[in-house]
Amino acid sequence: MSKKRVGKQTLRLQNPPCIAYSASVGGKMEADGPLAGSFDFLSADSYFGAKSWESAESAMLKKCFDLVLDKAGLTAEDIQFIFTGDLLNQCVGSEYAVRESGVPLFGLFGACATMSESLALAAMTLDGGFAETVCAMTASHYCSAERQFRLPLAYGGQRTPTAQWTATAAGALIITNAGEGPYITHVTPGKIVDAGIRDAANMGSAMAPAALETICAHLADTGRAPDYYDRIVTGDLGLVGHRILLELALGQGYDLGPVSADCGMLLFDRETQDVHAGGSGCGCSASVLVGHFLPKLKNGELKRLLFCATGALMSPTTAMQGESVLGICHAVAIENTKDPV
Amino acid sequence: MSKKRVGKQTLRLQNPPCIAYSASVGGKMEADGPLAGSFDFLSADSYFGAKSWESAESAMLKKCFDLVLDKAGLTAEDIQFIFTGDLLNQCVGSEYAVRESGVPLFGLFGACATMSESLALAAMTLDGGFAETVCAMTASHYCSAERQFRLPLAYGGQRTPTAQWTATAAGALIITNAGEGPYITHVTPGKIVDAGIRDAANMGSAMAPAALETICAHLADTGRAPDYYDRIVTGDLGLVGHRILLELALGQGYDLGPVSADCGMLLFDRETQDVHAGGSGCGCSASVLVGHFLPKLKNGELKRLLFCATGALMSPTTAMQGESVLGICHAVAIENTKDPV
Repeated sequence: MSKKRVGKQTLRLQNPPCIAYSASVGGKMEADGPLAGSFDFLSADSYFGAKSWESAESAMLKKCFDLVLDKAGLTAEDIQFIFTGDLLNQCVGSEYAVRESGVPLFGLFGACATMSESLALAAMTLDGGFAETVCAMTASHYCSAERQFRLPLAYGGQRTPTAQWTATAAGALIITNAGEGPYITHVTPGKIVDAGIRDAANMGSAMAPAALETICAHLADTGRAPDYYDRIVTGDLGLVGHRILLELALGQGYDLGPVSADCGMLLFDRETQDVHAGGSGCGCSASVLVGHFLPKLKNGELKRLLFCATGALMSPTTAMQGESVLGICHAVAIENTKDPV
Repeated sequence: MSKKRVGKQTLRLQNPPCIAYSASVGGKMEADGPLAGSFDFLSADSYFGAKSWESAESAMLKKCFDLVLDKAGLTAEDIQFIFTGDLLNQCVGSEYAVRESGVPLFGLFGACATMSESLALAAMTLDGGFAETVCAMTASHYCSAERQFRLPLAYGGQRTPTAQWTATAAGALIITNAGEGPYITHVTPGKIVDAGIRDAANMGSAMAPAALETICAHLADTGRAPDYYDRIVTGDLGLVGHRILLELALGQGYDLGPVSADCGMLLFDRETQDVHAGGSGCGCSASVLVGHFLPKLKNGELKRLLFCATGALMSPTTAMQGESVLGICHAVAIENTKDPV
């Protein structure tokens, strides 16, 4: 068996790639939220200067890509591959964002788990010796998601208590095979978990068992206890899904409570913002990782983080056909050393 | 620069992975076409025993995955990762196909270029030392695609001459880091090319410039002439797109005519089947690669093949918003030796 494989499902990177630069962009709700100060750019215009919400999503992600290039002092020509995807039908949000970049593209679909899926493949590509500098990025937009997955915004449909609020946000990370960290040391790609949830407004419940599966696999494969990590960060389980994850994990003998954090619960203030169970969307975990957690890893406040973006795999068509919502979660270990124990 | 990078855009695999097993499945139109004998399984039932065309697509791809496992004498547990995607919104065709497999999943969206995108990432994952046995697969279904991208089937809309017929077909390949070939020796991931085509019923014209870009990049990077290859196989340009590719390539100094073949022109008989410009869909290039070309590579009739699945990136929403259809093409060199010149 390859030296890079640890246990059943986890990959240990031989030359852990570095998250060298990152940028995040948000919209109005994000600007009103507790993490407003963590964004590189906030737009009061939900159209981001574009004419439709779909092209707004592309404009937002393009802005984020431009920002991370600026921060890195690079141009698109310096990026060997882009790994990206989004929630829109046929992933048009991300495709139109990079159409003028001239960078070879790996298009992904991992729903709200896209940030960790793209980081996983980016890290594997660097560690495999195929590139020196790549970009992993994703975005979501409340308005384009709402009308595609649920109802026209103008309809003013009432949302259920378990519903989450799709973040209007983007995150872009430049990963390199040299740099001062933090480093991606391990990757645990996730399996589909079908918990039988048929309520498309209850994504948290559909994703929590997938988060459990991947986190347990990662801990078993690496022999690490939950408290090895300063934080085990789930993507966007929200209040409902996060509570379920903690309960399920206790049943498996893991007390995640002391180290667990969920991007969907961090991005918005549930007391003052009408987001019900919390935030969601590819851009939620992407922007919270970039704005909130990476600076703490850079400044030493956090040393070890397990980033586990979670996705609900379904379409409005499968939901109407009575199919259950499938969950998936990919985990990426981000540490301040290339050579962890 | 990494030893595995050749030129600007091409990767040369150090330990070329082997396409060890493959299987293909088709529907009724495919059974009536010239490649009928090349399929492992043909279904006269367009529902594949399912209740909707979307779940039929999943059932077809699951059948194909089961078939390739059978041929290989493996179970899903032996597969370390699946790389898959499809045309349906949120890629539900492929996700529901593998939901019970228990195999870690990398979900992709590359439109009709998915077969070569999945092969590229599968090959990189093996060559990078992250796995020993993985599966790359994809599918498309005429009925689910037609009603999602164009019109309800029952409407009986008239199709334009440039329109293509989405294949009801699936292909699955098991790639290993040991085996007797054929081998994936090089990968040239593609860039988005925007040719400004705004007619969503003219995908061939939108994809041809992307095929040109990737094929030219591959030839320039590797220093190979077109006739190094026995065949340069494009995904599903169809009659219109393929003619454009040959013309554009001549303008770049490459005469692709003698070695060029297009899966969209091979799958159906344009004289007797009402497919207009030819076949398309993720399953078109997947099933033609598996059923038509791989056996010729196995038996020595062909020695070197450049497989270039092509994708049109768009959604009905972006088309209605007046956006152009973006093209992408990923190339994978498949050869009968691990150590090509």
